[in-house]
Amino acid sequence: MEKKTLLTHCSDAPGLIAKITNICYKHQLNIIHNNEYVDNASGHFFMRTELEGYFNDKTFLADLDQALPKGTKRKLVSSLRKKVVILVTKESHCLGDILMKAYDGSLGVDIAAVVGNYDSLQGLTEKFDIPYHHVSHVDLTREEHEEKMLKVIDSYEADYLVLAKYMRVLTPSFVESYHHKIINIHHSFLPAFIGAKPYQQAYDRGVKIIGATAHFVTNDLDEGPIIKQDVIPVDHNFSASDMAQAGRDVEKSVLSKALTKVVNDHVFVYGNKTVIL
Amino acid sequence: MEKKTLLTHCSDAPGLIAKITNICYKHQLNIIHNNEYVDNASGHFFMRTELEGYFNDKTFLADLDQALPKGTKRKLVSSLRKKVVILVTKESHCLGDILMKAYDGSLGVDIAAVVGNYDSLQGLTEKFDIPYHHVSHVDLTREEHEEKMLKVIDSYEADYLVLAKYMRVLTPSFVESYHHKIINIHHSFLPAFIGAKPYQQAYDRGVKIIGATAHFVTNDLDEGPIIKQDVIPVDHNFSASDMAQAGRDVEKSVLSKALTKVVNDHVFVYGNKTVIL
Amino acid sequence: MEKKTLLTHCSDAPGLIAKITNICYKHQLNIIHNNEYVDNASGHFFMRTELEGYFNDKTFLADLDQALPKGTKRKLVSSLRKKVVILVTKESHCLGDILMKAYDGSLGVDIAAVVGNYDSLQGLTEKFDIPYHHVSHVDLTREEHEEKMLKVIDSYEADYLVLAKYMRVLTPSFVESYHHKIINIHHSFLPAFIGAKPYQQAYDRGVKIIGATAHFVTNDLDEGPIIKQDVIPVDHNFSASDMAQAGRDVEKSVLSKALTKVVNDHVFVYGNKTVIL
Amino acid sequence: MEKKTLLTHCSDAPGLIAKITNICYKHQLNIIHNNEYVDNASGHFFMRTELEGYFNDKTFLADLDQALPKGTKRKLVSSLRKKVVILVTKESHCLGDILMKAYDGSLGVDIAAVVGNYDSLQGLTEKFDIPYHHVSHVDLTREEHEEKMLKVIDSYEADYLVLAKYMRVLTPSFVESYHHKIINIHHSFLPAFIGAKPYQQAYDRGVKIIGATAHFVTNDLDEGPIIKQDVIPVDHNFSASDMAQAGRDVEKSVLSKALTKVVNDHVFVYGNKTVIL
Repeated sequence: MEKKTLLTHCSDAPGLIAKITNICYKHQLNIIHNNEYVDNASGHFFMRTELEGYFNDKTFLADLDQALPKGTKRKLVSSLRKKVVILVTKESHCLGDILMKAYDGSLGVDIAAVVGNYDSLQGLTEKFDIPYHHVSHVDLTREEHEEKMLKVIDSYEADYLVLAKYMRVLTPSFVESYHHKIINIHHSFLPAFIGAKPYQQAYDRGVKIIGATAHFVTNDLDEGPIIKQDVIPVDHNFSASDMAQAGRDVEKSVLSKALTKVVNDHVFVYGNKTVIL
Repeated sequence: MEKKTLLTHCSDAPGLIAKITNICYKHQLNIIHNNEYVDNASGHFFMRTELEGYFNDKTFLADLDQALPKGTKRKLVSSLRKKVVILVTKESHCLGDILMKAYDGSLGVDIAAVVGNYDSLQGLTEKFDIPYHHVSHVDLTREEHEEKMLKVIDSYEADYLVLAKYMRVLTPSFVESYHHKIINIHHSFLPAFIGAKPYQQAYDRGVKIIGATAHFVTNDLDEGPIIKQDVIPVDHNFSASDMAQAGRDVEKSVLSKALTKVVNDHVFVYGNKTVIL
Repeated sequence: MEKKTLLTHCSDAPGLIAKITNICYKHQLNIIHNNEYVDNASGHFFMRTELEGYFNDKTFLADLDQALPKGTKRKLVSSLRKKVVILVTKESHCLGDILMKAYDGSLGVDIAAVVGNYDSLQGLTEKFDIPYHHVSHVDLTREEHEEKMLKVIDSYEADYLVLAKYMRVLTPSFVESYHHKIINIHHSFLPAFIGAKPYQQAYDRGVKIIGATAHFVTNDLDEGPIIKQDVIPVDHNFSASDMAQAGRDVEKSVLSKALTKVVNDHVFVYGNKTVIL
Repeated sequence: MEKKTLLTHCSDAPGLIAKITNICYKHQLNIIHNNEYVDNASGHFFMRTELEGYFNDKTFLADLDQALPKGTKRKLVSSLRKKVVILVTKESHCLGDILMKAYDGSLGVDIAAVVGNYDSLQGLTEKFDIPYHHVSHVDLTREEHEEKMLKVIDSYEADYLVLAKYMRVLTPSFVESYHHKIINIHHSFLPAFIGAKPYQQAYDRGVKIIGATAHFVTNDLDEGPIIKQDVIPVDHNFSASDMAQAGRDVEKSVLSKALTKVVNDHVFVYGNKTVIL
């Protein structure tokens, strides 16, 4: 017996749930969990179905394709752990959190490698017996640097890239090559404080709450589909650097939670938004 | 076109979702929202299906009964607003909150009447043109008092009774006559501080968080199925009465949220627990 | 015995706490609560001291003025309940919450009057025996309308004005006449979604959290000193109007909490920020 | 220039703040932060004063002793990082979090050693170059085991012991030898679910929120002074083991936050409660 997850996204139409669950039943696949969502405004239908049984992927998908509307996107995903490559610069809190959670099993991913434009985090990474690649950007154009990065990254055939405080902007070409597969943590409650130094901006504005946002990377900086956000209260006692320190806890927590949703195939990207089932 | 909600609760079995959604499809009932839950430990299946269309309740339910396992509980609920009777003693915060939310439409219920064992809240209730019945318990046995209460309450044929800080214990006979239809707000995070004076208990123990619990009333005092809980932080600055004051905000918020779930038919009671879909 | 609160704001200097508390001691005023804050970045000192005893305001303040640096702002505030005038348009949730909390005593203010540019909320207000003034803006210039508003408002000699979903922009001249005495509730987590239709903006951006901000009104729209912010989680199930509905609960809660801090003299305004002691 | 923190706890009396701050002023010690609290119910006064300057501890404390009431407890604490020894059994999440936060500097402590009654966490500990002592309890009486434990622990002269999921009950004699210096994380929102298997208890009761409690260890099991509590929402989807998994995140976060308060000298223990300034 195997477990797989069926992800279906199509135009809404009468009887979709019946059609899909009938086919599962016909193939003697047991539904462990099922969630649907219809965006009534746009007429889109989303369904995530965790299945258990003996799969014949080809005939199962063929049956689905015949029953479902033209243009349906459907994917049958194995329950194997996803492989991720983590990109970092100098800050350790997000990387450290992911390493520890992968180590103790609470984040079900395989960390294939960590790639950094500095070597600051090599020691920490190697404590966990994970390869660290230092790909310096010094004296390189953005394109040259990315080419070297991609050579390393591509070699791991990762399912997702995680920008764990990787502080360089990616080129459209890089983003395109990992379309909706790059997860970034932004150190503000987007869309507040877009751009540089969000904690300084938050301090200057005197806000009473700060936050963090995990999102897929697109070519519009800080504008990709949001996966998860969270916040913590601050007050006048917090300097800009106190806010940054407090924010680190939110950043790592939000990134881990987003990553958990993504690698367990709960996240549909739809327009510039996510549907999380 | 009408809207109704189908609530199904039965033993788990292969193909249940397919069977139910097939019948909806056959009856040309469109599924607006659908949620299922399977309790794998006990093998129970729960499904809540919001439907839109032209209903023939009799044939629809007959088809379901034929398709579903013996012993299935299913209910087709109209989308009419539920009628509630509110029981109170002297404290106004929960009653006031419900009155205001019913007034501004954010809580979709009809308040048929308020019944109190004191007359303290008569003025507040009547501001909103809702009948108030003062049924004093003075010089009456518990049974005599409840008999008089029930005479008033029964006359309204309410869907639910809400104990909005009604500070008297109900007899088993009263509870039985409104089985799983009485919602109480308890002023602690149950099961902590069961019994009298929970805020004094919380103060004495030096807790850093206090809470409130909305639950269905059963004959085990403070032990009925929990619908909703919430908490707020406190610290050493809070006296027992400060805690009670702070707790009032949580109490009313928890009670409103529980009530919203119940009157919109999201809550299944199952053993001594709730499943909220 | 009386209770009063001393609010002190001056340049930081050695010995300030000693000086102030010595003078309290000399005047046999007992310190019930005391809080200080030093903004080390700018060298400003803030102190809030709740005092109990027999006050000779004149000699007490004279002693303070002699001991403290030039330019010190100090205020000795009586513990009488503050008088507020509430401005509204059509939405009832914030007004309703304040009316109910004032009624049950959990918000220690006297509501002198409610002034609305529509008459939608007259019925609700008058349930609580509070005068309602309908000052329509129809066929009036902004200046003419405000002149009529101020004539009514000024007559109450209120300590604070509360914009409880008052949906018109105030002129600089109006704002100036109630400098740092107008509290607004903005329906977003500022500075995200500044301007019109923040819930539509939030929906379009696909955020996972929405919020509300209570702030003092200044001439920079949505840019005044923030007093209180709070948020709630949302997800893909929320339409823009669901977000607005969910947001109403946060709006009223944030406004009440901000108002409580302000009317109990906990809030210093400093630059474009608040210090809350 | 040095930084030290003065902690004062005595019976309340008029002029205490003036007296203490006068002495600081006389000794040319600048007050960086100051917080006081008076428990009016019991008449106790607490003050925490962060000072900067050139300290003559002896004369400073002598001046305080002369000025303050008999029986005053006062302590002048250096700003050196505290040394902790961590006790563990098999679960890694709390230990891992503390190791990582100590490594990246966000938790300002020196971890002198980790002591476990199993060797499960030796590998993790040694990744961070911290000594691990495996002191098995097998075939030993409780007293014999503790004797061996204390021999190791005492040798480090730690300021605090941290029970990071150390699953054995300590004897009164052990507790006494580290009076108010042992911090435990309990996997429930105390006093709910005292005793064994709190997540199973929470599951059985059908609660909608679970939590964790960090407290000082006393001889009354699960009854010591509470330092910090936090909670997360759960629902019917959570099995007992899902609750335990979700609870681990709260446990480690609560333990870290409690530890931060304790090692930065913010926590007074008073009766069976804490005052955190």
